[in-house]
Amino acid sequence: MDLYDALALRRDTRAEFTGVPPSDEALQRMLAAAHRAPSVGMSQPWVFVTVRDLATRRVFREHVHTEPEVFASSLDGERAATFSGIKVEGIVESGLGIVVGYDSTTAGAQVLGRHAIADAGLYSVCLAIQNLWLVATAEGVGVGWVSFYREAFLADLVGFPAHVRPVAWLCVGEVAELPTVPDLERFGWRGRRPLVVREESYDGVARTVSVD
Amino acid sequence: MDLYDALALRRDTRAEFTGVPPSDEALQRMLAAAHRAPSVGMSQPWVFVTVRDLATRRVFREHVHTEPEVFASSLDGERAATFSGIKVEGIVESGLGIVVGYDSTTAGAQVLGRHAIADAGLYSVCLAIQNLWLVATAEGVGVGWVSFYREAFLADLVGFPAHVRPVAWLCVGEVAELPTVPDLERFGWRGRRPLVVREESYDGVARTVSVD
Repeated sequence: MDLYDALALRRDTRAEFTGVPPSDEALQRMLAAAHRAPSVGMSQPWVFVTVRDLATRRVFREHVHTEPEVFASSLDGERAATFSGIKVEGIVESGLGIVVGYDSTTAGAQVLGRHAIADAGLYSVCLAIQNLWLVATAEGVGVGWVSFYREAFLADLVGFPAHVRPVAWLCVGEVAELPTVPDLERFGWRGRRPLVVREESYDGVARTVSVD
Repeated sequence: MDLYDALALRRDTRAEFTGVPPSDEALQRMLAAAHRAPSVGMSQPWVFVTVRDLATRRVFREHVHTEPEVFASSLDGERAATFSGIKVEGIVESGLGIVVGYDSTTAGAQVLGRHAIADAGLYSVCLAIQNLWLVATAEGVGVGWVSFYREAFLADLVGFPAHVRPVAWLCVGEVAELPTVPDLERFGWRGRRPLVVREESYDGVARTVSVD
């Protein structure tokens, strides 16, 4: 698939899963793409755990469903009503979870480029996730990133040691269709912002750039 | 360009810049791709500042060159010698800097999916950077991510307010060629790791997956 088509089609998937996990071939291409990401000091600090076990996914879903309540309690009436219509996860329906972690020890104690910015390792893991996501799109596989969880809970659930930090639970599976409008926009939660580019400094000339 | 070709060709650029910044059209496509990234709660929390001014880039380069010394002092003799042969930035040679920031205020105080994981906003910015990087590759434009700097210095240099955190300085420009082997591998700093995928839990079956 053309890169620009993949960028345009890429969607955060929630409601469209059919329950069928991706084929082994598609999954391998997604993970291989993730592994091709750039990384600080070539540390390649990503960890991938695939979760197919239904019991584990049910436990995680139960945990995740306590968090929307916490979040909803911080909203006023109208926003709470809007939020209640939004599906926040497809953990069980997707058929496969991929837990992505950050291992701070893959490149020893001295990581080139990470001494001044500790989070640079975490950034590398995110680049890998975006590669995975784009290839999933090219393979016709849906991906939804769940962030309604507590890190300690997920770390415990999949047995991460102390030096591995959870970064994402990705719901991964075949989809009936890819929606053309993001869920949060469709449900009236939040719209697309204009793309603003500032010249020379934050207070410099700010141009709005077309994204079409 | 095909997505898989872009993934395979994508390189961290340092030594190959010709001094010519990208065309306005290529730059617009890169930024538009970044803006298409998924983001937590649809917060779209990225900030882009383009820096063409040579004086600003020289000041930043000077700052950046104090950090390799700090890093080198933590290395033993052999590693220090290896490190001394590695080019860590192309700030002036590239012709254009893009400073990418994270604005934690773009979606108000209640960001859907960010209440439990504060760093999720930062993750969204990284996804945008990877989109930009892949489109740069498709456009024949080189990108190098500099992480040898102190965040406070860069924030001050480009006038970021307190709610905007610097995430990256990207060196962006036309390149004479894209190397086939990553710099850090070529210079003997660090090699490619195998791709390991663990099943069900961190201590579960660990398979090595082909990345070809």
